[in-house]
Amino acid sequence: MELILTLQCQDQPGIVNAITSAILECSGNIIENQQFTDPITNDFVMRTKFETALDIESSRKIIDKFGEKFKPSINLRESSKFKRALILVSKESHCLRDLLYLKEIGELPIEISMVLSNHDDLADLVQAHGIKFQRIDNKDEKKIAEVVKSSNIEFLILARFMQILSPALCSEMSGKIINIHHSFLPGFKGAKPYHQAFERGVKIIGATAHFVTADLDEGPIIEQDVSHVTHAAAPDELIAIGRDIERRVLSKAVKLFAEDRIFQVANRTIVFQ
Amino acid sequence: MELILTLQCQDQPGIVNAITSAILECSGNIIENQQFTDPITNDFVMRTKFETALDIESSRKIIDKFGEKFKPSINLRESSKFKRALILVSKESHCLRDLLYLKEIGELPIEISMVLSNHDDLADLVQAHGIKFQRIDNKDEKKIAEVVKSSNIEFLILARFMQILSPALCSEMSGKIINIHHSFLPGFKGAKPYHQAFERGVKIIGATAHFVTADLDEGPIIEQDVSHVTHAAAPDELIAIGRDIERRVLSKAVKLFAEDRIFQVANRTIVFQ
Amino acid sequence: MELILTLQCQDQPGIVNAITSAILECSGNIIENQQFTDPITNDFVMRTKFETALDIESSRKIIDKFGEKFKPSINLRESSKFKRALILVSKESHCLRDLLYLKEIGELPIEISMVLSNHDDLADLVQAHGIKFQRIDNKDEKKIAEVVKSSNIEFLILARFMQILSPALCSEMSGKIINIHHSFLPGFKGAKPYHQAFERGVKIIGATAHFVTADLDEGPIIEQDVSHVTHAAAPDELIAIGRDIERRVLSKAVKLFAEDRIFQVANRTIVFQ
Amino acid sequence: MELILTLQCQDQPGIVNAITSAILECSGNIIENQQFTDPITNDFVMRTKFETALDIESSRKIIDKFGEKFKPSINLRESSKFKRALILVSKESHCLRDLLYLKEIGELPIEISMVLSNHDDLADLVQAHGIKFQRIDNKDEKKIAEVVKSSNIEFLILARFMQILSPALCSEMSGKIINIHHSFLPGFKGAKPYHQAFERGVKIIGATAHFVTADLDEGPIIEQDVSHVTHAAAPDELIAIGRDIERRVLSKAVKLFAEDRIFQVANRTIVFQ
Repeated sequence: MELILTLQCQDQPGIVNAITSAILECSGNIIENQQFTDPITNDFVMRTKFETALDIESSRKIIDKFGEKFKPSINLRESSKFKRALILVSKESHCLRDLLYLKEIGELPIEISMVLSNHDDLADLVQAHGIKFQRIDNKDEKKIAEVVKSSNIEFLILARFMQILSPALCSEMSGKIINIHHSFLPGFKGAKPYHQAFERGVKIIGATAHFVTADLDEGPIIEQDVSHVTHAAAPDELIAIGRDIERRVLSKAVKLFAEDRIFQVANRTIVFQ
Repeated sequence: MELILTLQCQDQPGIVNAITSAILECSGNIIENQQFTDPITNDFVMRTKFETALDIESSRKIIDKFGEKFKPSINLRESSKFKRALILVSKESHCLRDLLYLKEIGELPIEISMVLSNHDDLADLVQAHGIKFQRIDNKDEKKIAEVVKSSNIEFLILARFMQILSPALCSEMSGKIINIHHSFLPGFKGAKPYHQAFERGVKIIGATAHFVTADLDEGPIIEQDVSHVTHAAAPDELIAIGRDIERRVLSKAVKLFAEDRIFQVANRTIVFQ
Repeated sequence: MELILTLQCQDQPGIVNAITSAILECSGNIIENQQFTDPITNDFVMRTKFETALDIESSRKIIDKFGEKFKPSINLRESSKFKRALILVSKESHCLRDLLYLKEIGELPIEISMVLSNHDDLADLVQAHGIKFQRIDNKDEKKIAEVVKSSNIEFLILARFMQILSPALCSEMSGKIINIHHSFLPGFKGAKPYHQAFERGVKIIGATAHFVTADLDEGPIIEQDVSHVTHAAAPDELIAIGRDIERRVLSKAVKLFAEDRIFQVANRTIVFQ
Repeated sequence: MELILTLQCQDQPGIVNAITSAILECSGNIIENQQFTDPITNDFVMRTKFETALDIESSRKIIDKFGEKFKPSINLRESSKFKRALILVSKESHCLRDLLYLKEIGELPIEISMVLSNHDDLADLVQAHGIKFQRIDNKDEKKIAEVVKSSNIEFLILARFMQILSPALCSEMSGKIINIHHSFLPGFKGAKPYHQAFERGVKIIGATAHFVTADLDEGPIIEQDVSHVTHAAAPDELIAIGRDIERRVLSKAVKLFAEDRIFQVANRTIVFQ
């Protein structure tokens, strides 16, 4: 069985040794191991993928025992058990399409439980992939919460969902909602970023995948990418170029999350590529 | 003789034909020609490099005659006559160093008339290249104006000059002062942008060369470039990575300006690469 | 009516003026104009988009008359009349999918007449977009030629078509077949380029869209893009990263071709972005 | 005292635990730790930076004791003791200049013991930085060997040294000679790569830093970078653009080497950024 262990706590001497001792006691074989200590907060984060003949519960007990004195926040997961995602979309399909495609060809280790939308436009696309689609009203967070509960949703993907979530929902699912902002944050917050970018005459545009917090467009950044543009690109062309950046940045962020590669420290992320 | 003609006016039918007719009448041979009409302002801009047996004054007369009815702003220059630059620096040498090196190996078609600084640190470096260096007081714009006049300076390069120029000077030399901002504008305006970038946890940092206006960090952007960074890069490392972006972005912008490739439209630039 | 004029001939003084005179005589309004003289071959190429009240035939006569003495190769086309493409695929869908999507949202000004494949795998995907799909045998170029003729095909797109075309077909459709090579040419020619890349330990991988010639992997390059990779990327991951580069490079090349932005000079291309 | 431990051996369970146990016994505090197992060769490599109150010899004994049974190749070094480099150059200064500058501002943790050249051109530049310069004859490897010995040189930097080293020297200093190849390998091996690139009409050019082996241009790649170019860039411009890529790729590779971040596996490198 292949397990992914992630751990976060204050940095203290002996922690790596304690964890590797635990894995040895599991007769585990480390396949990947990455760690980092944040120089500002002194947070220590670690991600270890290992193989073991033990089951997950036995492994967990051993790891807990060894890690105990460091009071870490520990997560242990079978790598073959995919996280269950709920995707929220509005009308634009490019991000959703990329997620569905990558899932289909086996590049995206997630389970897409359902797609909710405040429009009907993308129902056919979703259902053609054998995935449930439901239309919701613009502000119907009750429905979202219901699905999260009934489908054991582990994280939300806002794949160009043009609605602002309530602070309550953001807080409740903190660190579990990934959004794609169609701009290179913190460059152009708010509405119509490509028009803002054109007005400002920037020579590079980009997109940003980030965790959603109550503070709009200010959540921890997970992944960003950019493209050079020239004066000749009108807002429409910036939007077209932007679509390609958006989908690849969102898909990348979702993959990183699905593989437990993202840690949150203060308002920043540590990402183990 | 090789001439560079640049022209800007409201777009009207027949203008390209008028100019190419003028060049034909100069028995000119077009080497490069680029043009663009801004979709928002309807500004037409054109840059033509051509060879002619006529001298510059005769060529100018012919071009003025043909262009007259379009009321263009026209500039005609021998490509072998380099623009005279005044460089302003403070303590950091990376941008200045790159300009001096590129000038030395013939990659930068400018004449560096003098370097002024509010510090003494870079005097030796400048003088080792056979270029005059003068120390000025922090706010001594009188001295700057004096040098601009006495040395027939055509443009200013702020190569990490840590002083804010007065609105009066910005306005007087509008479109003739190039600054390097050590951030990917409009991302992090103001002081210590790399520290801001670190705090915000961005995954890409950059630098911006722009014309200086009275509105700090808001002048027309000429050139930008970026570099991917990870959580592991502390502010000091961001600064180190940033230096390399800064110098290459500033040098690129100066080269574009030196070759008359930049036009200003509204608060944006049109740049013919 | 909006027309796109492309022209190629040996460079001679007066040619730009002749063409702009012709457009004036068409009462045409130039929207875009780009030109370039190749320094090695002295080929002059020009692309002009203009609006005129005349029909295309009248415009053509006027342009031919003015251009005559330069013996140019001239092409004139209504920008609203899309070029008819035949797409060839095998089993992998990522490039085809991107073309279909971009076509669907109006980003790709081509008409996709039909998709041919030496496999059945992608039939459903194609037909779901309302486009005809036909299965062909591996070497059945007769069928390809038939479709080219019967559907007035103007160019072929090899969207991961894993068959080598005959020299006869390459020659007959010279400059009209666009291939995506899953490598950064001329780096890794031939089969399994990502495995070659891994073996060689490169730190950047890429993809190349090029015109197909009888000399495999040696045709004129249209567009290339790359992505940084690390030692941690196994061949399978290189392939996954590569897919995203491939689709965007091929789609970009097709768009450039569809808009008459590519000229061939010697074994190189001049591309007006 | 801050120590950098690097280790390479066949992967076996328990190795990370053994090393972290050793560091615990040194009362060491791990600052950075990275590890990787090559999927093809099963080589395990590890780099650990830690602080300890022990001296280096005591630390070494403890680590050797714990690591013993894994028969690793171990290297232990005080991070404040810089590696001694010998730089070889010919006439072009851009790479050398960048190394000298980065060294000067404290970005490059190496000691530059001497610069040897088969030309006199760069003598002044080197001596102005207070570093010894010696002219050597084209094939005078005896002199190189002499300096390596007398100055306890730990690695060679070929900063645009236009001479081919003998297989004997390459072999003797295997993994200790870093070269900058002015091309994106394996694209254009051999002479005049930018001219080759122009002839082939590539849309991206690059540079490659690699370890030197007897097999010219085929040594393990350390670092690569690229820049987009267009048809308008003549070979001279490609060379100019290339210079900027070369210097930054070489400096990066030297920094990685100086910090013990590069491991060699088969003909590839594992690089811990």
